[in-house]
Amino acid sequence: MNEYSLIGKRVPPIDGKVKATGAAEFTVDVRLPGMLFGKVLRSHVPHAKILNINAERAERLHGVRAVLTGADLPRNKKYSLFTNLPELYDQTPLAIDKVRYIGDEVAAVAATDEWIAEEALNLIEVEYEELPAVFDPYEAMDPGAPLLHEKSERNISRTAQFFHGDVDKAMKEAFYIRVDRFKTQATTHCAMEVHCAVAHWEQSDKVSIWSSTQSPFKTAETLSRYLDMPLNKIRVTKQFVGGGFGGKSDGLFPVDAIAALLSRKAGQPVKIVNTREEEFCTTRIRHPYFITIKTGVAKDGTLLAVDSKAVADTGAYNSWGPAIIGRAGVQVFMGYRLQNMRYEGHNVYTNHAPSGAFRGWGNLQMRFAADCQMDMIAEELGIDPMDLRLKNAHESGDVMPNKAWIPSCAMKECINLVSENERWKEKRDRMEAGRGLGAGIWAYVSGSRYNPHDATAAIIKVFEDGTATLLTGATDIGQGSNTTLAQIACEELGISVEDLTVISGDTEITPFDYGTYSSRVTYVSGNAVKAAAEDVKRQLFPYVAESLEADISDLVAKDGRVYVKGSPSKGMTFRDAVKGSLYSKDFHILGRGLYTPPTVVVNHETYEGHSSPAYGFGTDIVEVEVDGLTGQVDVIRISGAHDGGQPINPMQAEGQLEGSACQALGQSLYEELVFKEGQIMNPSFLEYKIPTALDAPVIVNELLAEPDPGGPFGAKGMSEGSIIAPSPAIANAVYNAVGVWVMDLPITPEKILKGLKNKENQDAAA
Amino acid sequence: MNEYSLIGKRVPPIDGKVKATGAAEFTVDVRLPGMLFGKVLRSHVPHAKILNINAERAERLHGVRAVLTGADLPRNKKYSLFTNLPELYDQTPLAIDKVRYIGDEVAAVAATDEWIAEEALNLIEVEYEELPAVFDPYEAMDPGAPLLHEKSERNISRTAQFFHGDVDKAMKEAFYIRVDRFKTQATTHCAMEVHCAVAHWEQSDKVSIWSSTQSPFKTAETLSRYLDMPLNKIRVTKQFVGGGFGGKSDGLFPVDAIAALLSRKAGQPVKIVNTREEEFCTTRIRHPYFITIKTGVAKDGTLLAVDSKAVADTGAYNSWGPAIIGRAGVQVFMGYRLQNMRYEGHNVYTNHAPSGAFRGWGNLQMRFAADCQMDMIAEELGIDPMDLRLKNAHESGDVMPNKAWIPSCAMKECINLVSENERWKEKRDRMEAGRGLGAGIWAYVSGSRYNPHDATAAIIKVFEDGTATLLTGATDIGQGSNTTLAQIACEELGISVEDLTVISGDTEITPFDYGTYSSRVTYVSGNAVKAAAEDVKRQLFPYVAESLEADISDLVAKDGRVYVKGSPSKGMTFRDAVKGSLYSKDFHILGRGLYTPPTVVVNHETYEGHSSPAYGFGTDIVEVEVDGLTGQVDVIRISGAHDGGQPINPMQAEGQLEGSACQALGQSLYEELVFKEGQIMNPSFLEYKIPTALDAPVIVNELLAEPDPGGPFGAKGMSEGSIIAPSPAIANAVYNAVGVWVMDLPITPEKILKGLKNKENQDAAA
Repeated sequence: MNEYSLIGKRVPPIDGKVKATGAAEFTVDVRLPGMLFGKVLRSHVPHAKILNINAERAERLHGVRAVLTGADLPRNKKYSLFTNLPELYDQTPLAIDKVRYIGDEVAAVAATDEWIAEEALNLIEVEYEELPAVFDPYEAMDPGAPLLHEKSERNISRTAQFFHGDVDKAMKEAFYIRVDRFKTQATTHCAMEVHCAVAHWEQSDKVSIWSSTQSPFKTAETLSRYLDMPLNKIRVTKQFVGGGFGGKSDGLFPVDAIAALLSRKAGQPVKIVNTREEEFCTTRIRHPYFITIKTGVAKDGTLLAVDSKAVADTGAYNSWGPAIIGRAGVQVFMGYRLQNMRYEGHNVYTNHAPSGAFRGWGNLQMRFAADCQMDMIAEELGIDPMDLRLKNAHESGDVMPNKAWIPSCAMKECINLVSENERWKEKRDRMEAGRGLGAGIWAYVSGSRYNPHDATAAIIKVFEDGTATLLTGATDIGQGSNTTLAQIACEELGISVEDLTVISGDTEITPFDYGTYSSRVTYVSGNAVKAAAEDVKRQLFPYVAESLEADISDLVAKDGRVYVKGSPSKGMTFRDAVKGSLYSKDFHILGRGLYTPPTVVVNHETYEGHSSPAYGFGTDIVEVEVDGLTGQVDVIRISGAHDGGQPINPMQAEGQLEGSACQALGQSLYEELVFKEGQIMNPSFLEYKIPTALDAPVIVNELLAEPDPGGPFGAKGMSEGSIIAPSPAIANAVYNAVGVWVMDLPITPEKILKGLKNKENQDAAA
Repeated sequence: MNEYSLIGKRVPPIDGKVKATGAAEFTVDVRLPGMLFGKVLRSHVPHAKILNINAERAERLHGVRAVLTGADLPRNKKYSLFTNLPELYDQTPLAIDKVRYIGDEVAAVAATDEWIAEEALNLIEVEYEELPAVFDPYEAMDPGAPLLHEKSERNISRTAQFFHGDVDKAMKEAFYIRVDRFKTQATTHCAMEVHCAVAHWEQSDKVSIWSSTQSPFKTAETLSRYLDMPLNKIRVTKQFVGGGFGGKSDGLFPVDAIAALLSRKAGQPVKIVNTREEEFCTTRIRHPYFITIKTGVAKDGTLLAVDSKAVADTGAYNSWGPAIIGRAGVQVFMGYRLQNMRYEGHNVYTNHAPSGAFRGWGNLQMRFAADCQMDMIAEELGIDPMDLRLKNAHESGDVMPNKAWIPSCAMKECINLVSENERWKEKRDRMEAGRGLGAGIWAYVSGSRYNPHDATAAIIKVFEDGTATLLTGATDIGQGSNTTLAQIACEELGISVEDLTVISGDTEITPFDYGTYSSRVTYVSGNAVKAAAEDVKRQLFPYVAESLEADISDLVAKDGRVYVKGSPSKGMTFRDAVKGSLYSKDFHILGRGLYTPPTVVVNHETYEGHSSPAYGFGTDIVEVEVDGLTGQVDVIRISGAHDGGQPINPMQAEGQLEGSACQALGQSLYEELVFKEGQIMNPSFLEYKIPTALDAPVIVNELLAEPDPGGPFGAKGMSEGSIIAPSPAIANAVYNAVGVWVMDLPITPEKILKGLKNKENQDAAA
């Protein structure tokens, strides 16, 4: 038990009631007077020049109010989410001149209802000149392959290439070296809420956009640059968001911009809601990675050097790809201590649907490779794989070779705790036939530096009766940040969460915050909120100190009161303090919190720099049962121990960890977007299988409550990184169960049966 | 020409376009999903006990979702707008136990449309026991008169009684003393937008109210106390407001509370919109005043003493009456220098519809009496009435007998300027027959202290591109404060008003501000906004100073740039400064302004205290033509000179002055609510005549741009006080034209003809 009133407590979500009763308003629920419905015409070919678009018949259809094509867009302008790297700009809301994947936006219609809009799409005639397409990133890099974007030679949108220490020397000194190749598949987020936007372009040339986004401020900023509009003329508001998982973290999705431009053209508000098929085929995909990893270790298992290469299929557009390709390389030494490393990663365009951010991006792929290989090395060296992990685990204060340091790390404690909980050694030695136990770890940033700044702010406006409003730009996308931020503010102020209203994610009225990505909200936004609450106390305490004849420094705010530390009776209610201060000092209490994590901009050449203020860690042990006849893998149990610092709300943290486990289960065993000549063949929940409640194994998680020195009340991020560990743990467990390595995800029955067959043949040959 | 870029400039209203095109959303335009319509059943008797209400039949009507009666209200709770004076609490949203005027709220219905709601009202049976009623405030004060509120003896809700100096001694020393009686009538605001409210009581027990109010924060605070709800569970939002003139400045109007409580009962949002008849009969009225004023002067016209009494008909409820009755007495020495005065005012309940705040409240009534009497005295002493005014006029630095001081006063300059402009002396000496010239003055507060505090705050949130959002609780009710506040912020920041978005008057998201009353917004809210802009510069300048190698104290922000004073080329654009600061200092610029006027709470017994930070002044000269046959008064010209300090926007100031002149014209000549046994006989624009464009005389106004030391850029209030001068000026001009004094408003043809007849009789008798 800690000393806190709210931190570390299972506070129910502050929006639980409105969500449970259906009263919560999501973007799809936004209705404006005179609102039209928009639909998007998409390319049915993977690569083609647009020779001509004839929209006349569509425009004449009764009920159609506007048709938008590339001709309506700013000339010679593109955008990407990398504000400060114009060399990466590669996208437009609608295709101009050519289409690059099946699903590419070609034209859009706003009409009085969805059916008319849909019908109008059929009336738009697009004349294409088909171009050769390329779907394999290695082929795409071949000289002579069709180019998607002229400026990207060999279709490489970005190469991340960096090294630390002396890899060649270390490899020479290694007791054991091995090289393995791994592959990960295309998956997608499957958020329950599809991408959607409502835009209202007002006569005053100001546009308001309600978007299902993870970062309203990034959306506004990107649109502002693309349309050359001042930021005070663009208002982006987030409603309740039905899941994001990274899939709504691009700066600007075409639907946002298309809705805005259709509204400008039609003079009426426009709503666009993706169909589920559009959601599967045209939003974002987890990058398929092709990874070659060569690792050298000492005899005792100490990691000496890792030399790795990755090729990522980024599809038709960049999205977050250029950042992910670098981060995958950094994961190599983020997971374990390592001073000698070399990495080369290519982010490659193909005529597939665009890949982008997805919970654990790049890190998941690289960790799958590295942590499977860890078990292979352990076996070769005759070391218990958990001992091998323990030997190489980070500790608090470690400095990574890129000069980033780790303020707090309880990785060893996680490994020990979960091993003990699961009786790892005894149990693993005596597994039943077909049963296996495997482990994996995760290590992940708490916020990361991709933007030219990471300044965050929050305001707490205190009412006369001691209740308050928190204004924060942070974006609750269902993960519950409104609740955790309320806990942080209320803990600091010593009031109850009922006494605080949270207003979040509205570019016009809330302070700046880059939003939800890279597990930054609890740490970064949380610190800004805490600072605002501290500022409230700074304004409030002088009056209380005067009234009580006490020192300001002796005052505490707790349990609805402000009192002298150690003498709870010498004090007054928070409400009386506020009212007394207001009446006697005669100014309003208006807390302002500014926070910027102590990070530095990453050097995009060397990937050096302290890009995250803190790191979360964890270890999972997974037990599987593999059916030798069918190849079917049944995950029995996922047990983890996690270091996310001091959890703000254990119930929410556990919910996130359980979500991570289930999403990882799908990623490991079930999910894969199947492409055929650029066409996604399974764009529905019928064909693309995600785990349901019935598929969920027993999930057990322990939270180590080791406070991080810089996090608000010691908290760090944990919800994103925790998706990383289960995949290698499952692969390792499968190997432990049946002696088959499946090195490309997902681990399907077919691959296991093939492995078993190979093994049989090898055994027979031996 | 001043040195400013925006202050004193004719900046077009920032909301001009949306208003002109009809896109602006007023409260009546608010539409929510599932919204019901509310109607109010009102008393048809002036005074009665409610024996029983049977609403069963109404509840059973198809489409009715809720019926509300006094039984649904909190027991034993009342409210008034005087938060801290519970002895004045006298109102409930619906009558409980008894009704006190024709129009009193008795029950309310929410139904799926207005017609069903209206029909349901007819089905509610109310059993009354009629009580004797009283309509004359003098009769109401008689012992034995029927009591409206048990706790108010003799129906006196409040008596203001105070004196300064030694009146009796001064009267003894006076060269000339006269006593006159004046009377002013009941008028009403006639705002184009009627009172209306939309309320949405959410499942989370939070209520959102969109109200046509002058003070959202006061509405929230009053409702919070009345319903015992925390302030963070009540959100009051102001849309565009179609006029207020004081009529929307009560803390809480019954419609707000009724809509909220109906919504709670029905579980759906509820809208209530007054009919024009309800607006006339049940909102607020300018208090009819009965004034006796005894004045003693020296031979040279110096005012020596004023002994005055006032009785105000406050109708059935207090509203602002208890404040107004005191302020009327203070006006006696606010208008001219005066050290010896005595005042006794009674605010008296009658069974009339409630009186309340109306532009220039109390001051208008008292100044009408005092400034007509000024002309009578001048005539008696053989002094030019303008010279008499000049002799007694205030000057900057004057301290009034109640210890309030006047930081700036250009009254003498106003008198001289307007006299010169109108060639007062030459012209007045040679008026054509039936023509007359008269003068009147005004003096008025710039904000006044009625609440336990007057703390005001503002936030300026600066975007990365140098554009910004201003968050202010100030309430633009059509007077244009959003524009003037934008000018203040942008002048300070050196940016254009296009680069600032103003969000105002929303209790949940904007900082606290008591709203629009007592001409406080430009001065008080303006100072808070200016402070927020100064805070922005405080955050921004360190970076600029560093970059330019200059001293922070040498920097100025002007014309979109920040540069070294005197060397405009040594600088950078505001945008570059913001972006540079953000990128290098890595925190967001978030300006916070807190401002409290340097006032002290008025002593409610002695009316001593510095209750306003500044005072505006002005003088009008009016030319009239009086038709001796019909008694018809035609106002030819109203010419004024006004000291509102440095005007922020002369165009808006002139608009306000012209509005004042026209509203005063109605008050002086046309308007009067006619009561018959408590029933208003002329509740429509057909019968209650307000001046139209065709009635408007030539109006000329000059603004003296003398800066006040404490106002933002030297500004003071002027729009409310300026309604005061025309009434005495018109009465004085009528006397000048035909030698008839009309001492009770309005100056109707009948009264003039009666005066002419009397005069004829006297002349004949002489």
